[in-house]
Amino acid sequence: MKRIITISRELGSGGRTIGKMVANRMGIPYYDRELIDEAAKVTGLSPKYVEGYEQRATNSFLYNLVMGSSYGYGILQSANKQTLPLTEQIYNAQRDVIQKYAESGSCVIVGRCADDILKNRDDVLRVFIYADVEKRLKHSIENYGMSKETAKEEIERSDRERARHYSAFADKKWGDRRNYDIMLNSGVLGFENCAKIICSTAGLDS
Amino acid sequence: MKRIITISRELGSGGRTIGKMVANRMGIPYYDRELIDEAAKVTGLSPKYVEGYEQRATNSFLYNLVMGSSYGYGILQSANKQTLPLTEQIYNAQRDVIQKYAESGSCVIVGRCADDILKNRDDVLRVFIYADVEKRLKHSIENYGMSKETAKEEIERSDRERARHYSAFADKKWGDRRNYDIMLNSGVLGFENCAKIICSTAGLDS
Repeated sequence: MKRIITISRELGSGGRTIGKMVANRMGIPYYDRELIDEAAKVTGLSPKYVEGYEQRATNSFLYNLVMGSSYGYGILQSANKQTLPLTEQIYNAQRDVIQKYAESGSCVIVGRCADDILKNRDDVLRVFIYADVEKRLKHSIENYGMSKETAKEEIERSDRERARHYSAFADKKWGDRRNYDIMLNSGVLGFENCAKIICSTAGLDS
Repeated sequence: MKRIITISRELGSGGRTIGKMVANRMGIPYYDRELIDEAAKVTGLSPKYVEGYEQRATNSFLYNLVMGSSYGYGILQSANKQTLPLTEQIYNAQRDVIQKYAESGSCVIVGRCADDILKNRDDVLRVFIYADVEKRLKHSIENYGMSKETAKEEIERSDRERARHYSAFADKKWGDRRNYDIMLNSGVLGFENCAKIICSTAGLDS
């Protein structure tokens, strides 16, 4: 029985939709946007700024520093909060919120390295949702009103940024099967079926 | 509803055990060793020789040729059977047997690029089973009577050979999520639970 579900996902794979379905089916909270708002409160930054931090984090000097050395990250982690770059402060604020939510009860958490942040808990089911690019394009065009060209660019940008962000903060490879308990191809299985599989897997005795 | 289950797996991840559980639960045949015996009959080679062909295939000149160029593979495919190297003849014999089994009814097929061979069918659930190295070592020591050192070597060798063989014949990356519908971490979920998840996923309406 796993009472916390973390969902990592590729843009356009329906991870959010599936996460909401799982939360509805299980009758538990769904956290996504809430993490941004909470982190904004803690850091005193605007939600808009917090939302865009993954992109900035991976484009910054900090990113190069962290990527080049896990020792660099150790230094940053142990440094006084006041001296931390904003990207680090935001990451830390979101991490604290995720840990607080996990402590307080069952929930579904989408994105934000939650699988890594909660990796030492044994009540977490770590899910990764993916799909073929054609299916992701279709979903992005239909649901986000993007042109095909924009959707293609956004998918490529998102894959690059999520991989970099995960590598920088979790120090592991995003999408690598070793980081997840179950990986589902939503393009083949369908969103509803993915939600069903996640719910029944979470309910199994370990 | 998927009536054919292909299982690709890492050595020591329990893929065979899980495959047998799935076949038992669904009351359908399990094909593994049978593919070797059938291919041996077709090619006139000994089952022992057929069994070891993946290793030879990836160590041969043919492997380098195929790996270096998909054009090379095209040439091989269109060549007269009599002129094909034994590794190709064995692969082709196993491919034909897999296609015959898939045509004839529901089944579980373990290994042998079955996911790729049957990729154009929409009644196939393509599963990949994996686990952390520590869990794979434990399983190999307990079930195959290996020493820790031997188990470590066998796991490394097997990963290398399966990746090369899949790359040579399926022309894709072994273990890459895009080639599978569902990937399960048997080290975390447990063998019984993996079997339950596979059976219930196969039974879902698409």
